Amino acid sequence: MRMYDVIAKKRDGGALSPQEIGFAVNGYVRGDVPDYQMSALLMAIYLRGMTAQETACLTEVMARSGEWVDLGAIEGVKVDKHSTGGVGDKTTLIAGPIAAACGARVAKMSGRGLGHTGGTLDKIEAIPGARVDLSREEFVRQVNEIGIAVIGQSADLAPADKLLYALRDVTATVSSIPLIASSVMSKKLACGADGILLDVKVGSGAFMKTPQDALALAREMVSIGRAHGRRCAALVTDMSQPLGRMVGNALEVREAVETLQGRGPADLTHECVALAANMLRLAGRGDAAACEAMAQKALADGSALAKLRAMIAAQGGDARVADDPSLLRAAPKSAEVRAGRSGWLAAMDTERIGTAAVLLGAGREKKDDAIDPGAGLCVLKKPGDAVQKGDVLAVLYAGSEARLRAGEEAYRAALAFANEPQPQRPLVYARVDETGAVHETAQNE
Amino acid sequence: MRMYDVIAKKRDGGALSPQEIGFAVNGYVRGDVPDYQMSALLMAIYLRGMTAQETACLTEVMARSGEWVDLGAIEGVKVDKHSTGGVGDKTTLIAGPIAAACGARVAKMSGRGLGHTGGTLDKIEAIPGARVDLSREEFVRQVNEIGIAVIGQSADLAPADKLLYALRDVTATVSSIPLIASSVMSKKLACGADGILLDVKVGSGAFMKTPQDALALAREMVSIGRAHGRRCAALVTDMSQPLGRMVGNALEVREAVETLQGRGPADLTHECVALAANMLRLAGRGDAAACEAMAQKALADGSALAKLRAMIAAQGGDARVADDPSLLRAAPKSAEVRAGRSGWLAAMDTERIGTAAVLLGAGREKKDDAIDPGAGLCVLKKPGDAVQKGDVLAVLYAGSEARLRAGEEAYRAALAFANEPQPQRPLVYARVDETGAVHETAQNE
Repeated sequence: MRMYDVIAKKRDGGALSPQEIGFAVNGYVRGDVPDYQMSALLMAIYLRGMTAQETACLTEVMARSGEWVDLGAIEGVKVDKHSTGGVGDKTTLIAGPIAAACGARVAKMSGRGLGHTGGTLDKIEAIPGARVDLSREEFVRQVNEIGIAVIGQSADLAPADKLLYALRDVTATVSSIPLIASSVMSKKLACGADGILLDVKVGSGAFMKTPQDALALAREMVSIGRAHGRRCAALVTDMSQPLGRMVGNALEVREAVETLQGRGPADLTHECVALAANMLRLAGRGDAAACEAMAQKALADGSALAKLRAMIAAQGGDARVADDPSLLRAAPKSAEVRAGRSGWLAAMDTERIGTAAVLLGAGREKKDDAIDPGAGLCVLKKPGDAVQKGDVLAVLYAGSEARLRAGEEAYRAALAFANEPQPQRPLVYARVDETGAVHETAQNE
Repeated sequence: MRMYDVIAKKRDGGALSPQEIGFAVNGYVRGDVPDYQMSALLMAIYLRGMTAQETACLTEVMARSGEWVDLGAIEGVKVDKHSTGGVGDKTTLIAGPIAAACGARVAKMSGRGLGHTGGTLDKIEAIPGARVDLSREEFVRQVNEIGIAVIGQSADLAPADKLLYALRDVTATVSSIPLIASSVMSKKLACGADGILLDVKVGSGAFMKTPQDALALAREMVSIGRAHGRRCAALVTDMSQPLGRMVGNALEVREAVETLQGRGPADLTHECVALAANMLRLAGRGDAAACEAMAQKALADGSALAKLRAMIAAQGGDARVADDPSLLRAAPKSAEVRAGRSGWLAAMDTERIGTAAVLLGAGREKKDDAIDPGAGLCVLKKPGDAVQKGDVLAVLYAGSEARLRAGEEAYRAALAFANEPQPQRPLVYARVDETGAVHETAQNE
């Protein structure tokens, strides 16, 4: 077999065989296939696409290129949740504890934030003392004992995906549905969960800009999960504005605690209940209505908050933050962003809001950048809100005045105003069930 | 400017600016742009195409990457002829002398054969003593004195094209019309001729398999020439069978001499007159009818043969071959290929005929392979001919019995027979004039 012929076949729109995909990807990992041939193949895949079979096969080859986690020592159905990345997305810290409180086994391996999107590990590390580097034994024991653990992914998880992603990142071949789907699912398969709930974000702050693309990605990922015998479903959720009000690591933990205390923003609360209910369905805890009722109850009776408290304690963190989130370190400087005109806030460029948070110190542009856990912002006016000139639109938090100024400039550039109220987007667009069927939900906040 | 953005723009179907093309190509030549980004861009160009403006710009950037030959010291209009490559294509050795005999200045820099196609330099070197490595001064003096010289291309001619071609060759991005057109024309522009006649081959022995593709390539190349102020025209000619009867270096020189002696095969004679007449038109020697009459006369009165004799002598070769081509060294072993059935020879896979010649020793598979100048084959039956079982279809010449056997196997595999006569292809499909207008010619042999 020659890599040349594999490239030419895909270039001409052909479907690659499992042998051809294995040859290309494993050859690339071994160093037998050079970067320049792999990047030509990636561009051909980007422009020609892949069949569902090819995508499932690519996922498997990447998943099998490194550690294959065995969660057999955890009793019951293990469920994982994965978000394609957004701004202000702290749902793991809310939906995870809700699902665990209802009896699901939430064994989650998570990533760090990069670019305008945040990462759950960074948020957990904003809690004084909290660790995300548990050993495999500690991880298994914690899930068995309290039902939930969130740790970092093993460095040896799907190394083929890491190599390919690094190449895609510099060759403009990231935003391809089969390549995104196989990248995400290779890590999810290797992590060993029985059930995987995918939260596919759509809108100005997400990689997918249209509901059509997001739904296509959701279906592709569910199809891959099904092809590999996992229970897998997806929600397509809005990212045309930050989720909740807080963006930034300590700020988001604070908002997660407040939401589990029953005093969180409506959009965040609603979405977390939907995510938790869907995790419970994958864990076989009942039908849609039963699972939603369970989730609502765990939120209302404090049992979900108790799970978060137990998880923080088990991972070495200061569990008092679950009762007094003001214990979380705040950045020393703050500034208000005020409206320069009256009217309606029409839309947000949410990627720019994410960039504002990075400029404030809450995120990283490059993999090794340091993070300021107390930095970030609080969104006070959201699209659809009426504003009067002088109203506070947001409060920014940072370690220096220079960062505040840079963050404010980016924040202002993200806003669009109108003279009349604008129609707003639904919070959850659609649900893809385990069979791949699409259910339009279109629930509004 | 970032290479990433250039790739993404082409990936999404955008047209690259001259700045972007210069940035990518010059950066690649300097080593600032890595192979893997350039190959992603090449695949995006392959699948998305390029506008005429982009292609002209790419050509210019490649042409300017190395030596820019100044033929100003040659008096009059300098004309060049370029074939896209075929099997048995010895037209430069016939049409060149005809055009020179009619007063054109034929200043030609040529290439070597690779794969199934032959190269003019290898044919000239099959003449005892003949050199193709004239200095620039010798080249200019020879064209001024006798009107024609054919030499090798400078090693520093369009180095960007050499680098890009090597990358295309291993990333399945060769067969793209804008990339082929810019590759050919970058070298032609750098060679400095005022008029360029392109002979675009089509059929089983050519890179272009359909008349539509060949015409598209011809128009693209003429458009590039026009954009750079050169007089440029193209003929689309048949390569569904070898041109003439001889394939192999010394054998082709012999057939060229015989054709200039007025006893060559009809197809070859006809095509060479058409090529020479078109070279004369580019040199401003008159209209179509006048140029064709001039070419016919130079062939009939021996003045074209005299030009070949003078050229061979000027380049150090044994000029007696122009009168007695049997002086050319023949390979020691020969074998006849006989028909195993009666019927009609329907078609030839001409690329396989070229491969048969390579196996006999007449060509090279890799750039540094040695060539046997006496090896090759003589085609006795061509598509359209009736054959009786036992008829000699071809005679093969090689240095060893093993090569004869390998050549015969390839030759036989190239033939298709039928029980009835089959319609044959025209010899010249179309002419693209200097304005880019297409004239259907469809002349039959």
